[in-house]
Amino acid sequence: MRAVTITDEILSVQDRATPLPESGCVLVAVAGAGLNGADIMQRRGLYPAPPGWPVDVPGLEFAGTIEALGPDVEGFRVGDRVMGIVGGGAQASHVTTDATTLLRVPDSLDLVVAGGFPEAFTTAFDAIVNQGFLLPGERLLVTGAAGGVGTAAIQIGRLLGADVTASVRDLSRRDELVALGANRVVNPDDVKDAGPYDVVVELVGAASLTNGVLAALNEFARVVVIGVGGGTKAEVNLLGMMAGRITLTGSTLRARSREEKAGIAAAMKQVLLPALAEGTLSVPVLARYSLDTVNEAYERFSAGSKLGKIILEV
Amino acid sequence: MRAVTITDEILSVQDRATPLPESGCVLVAVAGAGLNGADIMQRRGLYPAPPGWPVDVPGLEFAGTIEALGPDVEGFRVGDRVMGIVGGGAQASHVTTDATTLLRVPDSLDLVVAGGFPEAFTTAFDAIVNQGFLLPGERLLVTGAAGGVGTAAIQIGRLLGADVTASVRDLSRRDELVALGANRVVNPDDVKDAGPYDVVVELVGAASLTNGVLAALNEFARVVVIGVGGGTKAEVNLLGMMAGRITLTGSTLRARSREEKAGIAAAMKQVLLPALAEGTLSVPVLARYSLDTVNEAYERFSAGSKLGKIILEV
Repeated sequence: MRAVTITDEILSVQDRATPLPESGCVLVAVAGAGLNGADIMQRRGLYPAPPGWPVDVPGLEFAGTIEALGPDVEGFRVGDRVMGIVGGGAQASHVTTDATTLLRVPDSLDLVVAGGFPEAFTTAFDAIVNQGFLLPGERLLVTGAAGGVGTAAIQIGRLLGADVTASVRDLSRRDELVALGANRVVNPDDVKDAGPYDVVVELVGAASLTNGVLAALNEFARVVVIGVGGGTKAEVNLLGMMAGRITLTGSTLRARSREEKAGIAAAMKQVLLPALAEGTLSVPVLARYSLDTVNEAYERFSAGSKLGKIILEV
Repeated sequence: MRAVTITDEILSVQDRATPLPESGCVLVAVAGAGLNGADIMQRRGLYPAPPGWPVDVPGLEFAGTIEALGPDVEGFRVGDRVMGIVGGGAQASHVTTDATTLLRVPDSLDLVVAGGFPEAFTTAFDAIVNQGFLLPGERLLVTGAAGGVGTAAIQIGRLLGADVTASVRDLSRRDELVALGANRVVNPDDVKDAGPYDVVVELVGAASLTNGVLAALNEFARVVVIGVGGGTKAEVNLLGMMAGRITLTGSTLRARSREEKAGIAAAMKQVLLPALAEGTLSVPVLARYSLDTVNEAYERFSAGSKLGKIILEV
């Protein structure tokens, strides 16, 4: 198989042995694999793969076709169109993964585009549902809303019946974000005035929290931190948290157990896949790159100012 | 009735009309009413009573005997021994409150001593169970453990099968805290070495969080802030919270709705009252004061360095 490979922070495409699927696993011929911020960090040596995953092949998400089944796989057949998240190794022609963590790709969705669905939507779904406990009619704030997770969070919030406020630095994105489901799009400086919020998907980090978010919360608000590009050290007012009964939490998806990923996939299958099949949810795509132009893809991602996913097409 | 009354930060005992119980409420002849930090703050004008409660009569907890029933009260009779929390007004010869928030006082418990049970145990129970989701076998840290809520939290943690670490500045309290159920008693400087913890009942605040607690957490730890005497502004490392999937939350009990207080009381009735009746849970009492010596009681409370409740005996 061919695999994007990191050697001393340099990306190349190398040939290596195609793995055989172990018990409960499948071998997937990858059609598309989305880029994520974690890949950029991993290339810089800042975010090593968790134990059990390839150390030098980046890629947290993929969509493709099942090429072989390991022993004891139930519910899937060779040729099935599937997508999923992995701890690494997705930016390759082939990837093996546990079948319980897979989602089926709706017939209506392009298989390459589907490679940009799993990571952002799983991250946003887990933050909003499993950590944020969003209820219909509640007010959801998504900061740093123009990225992959942000646009997924806007769509999921709208799908679940929330009133969605999207915060972005570049207000020229307004129309696109409204089209995805945002009830309003605000500049970070106006986050406080557009509040209060019940659930916050915090994709920026410390600067965002202290410059408005923490002062714009409803009682019982849940603030879920899943991005810290805007700083990691935040000063919180404990008395304010107590008075408002605020919950501040954070997580990453990558290092989670197979069982937990399977649990999230099962919930997404029920809640998100019908909407994805109908087109209520969509994967905004900024650009596709072939494996051979992986360096250009990473450069484009790092340049920022993007709305939509960058996807490697295999 | 006679009531402790705050006038321009001065305490006195004054006569006022005994209230009639409204629908669903009872009139209780108070036998004992515990002191709490909130009373001290309220006297200083820093913590006004929430709407619907007496503005000038302190007291968040009581035990006594039902003297009269309002309309539509079910399950209680005149003469029943009861205890409960209120938004204010408990430091008086009589108090009216909603019957659904009452707990019965076990026959084995002195009625005056019972007046020091509800506030601390309800606060600790809510923090540990409803916010901390403590499971048997998990490791519980209680900071500032020598006070009323701290000693309640130690006992509840032990009752629920946790391994309990108590942090106190004055290690001469060690034997008393071990007798209440602490597996170990440490100085705040040694909190980190005795970790990691799954649930933290944080009774000190910012200084405690940043000087050890936040660096001594297990994955999925839940930190519940319910005291901030050691500072209200805490710097948290968001990346650490994400990596450890930490939850930081806080609350106060006083302003909660009748419905929520009734819900907590129902859970405490099931989980705590049998243990209180058997003596597995106890209310450590430092001193009792008559209503007429209320100023001495407040001075003793404010002097600190205490283990056990100060209770006004009516």
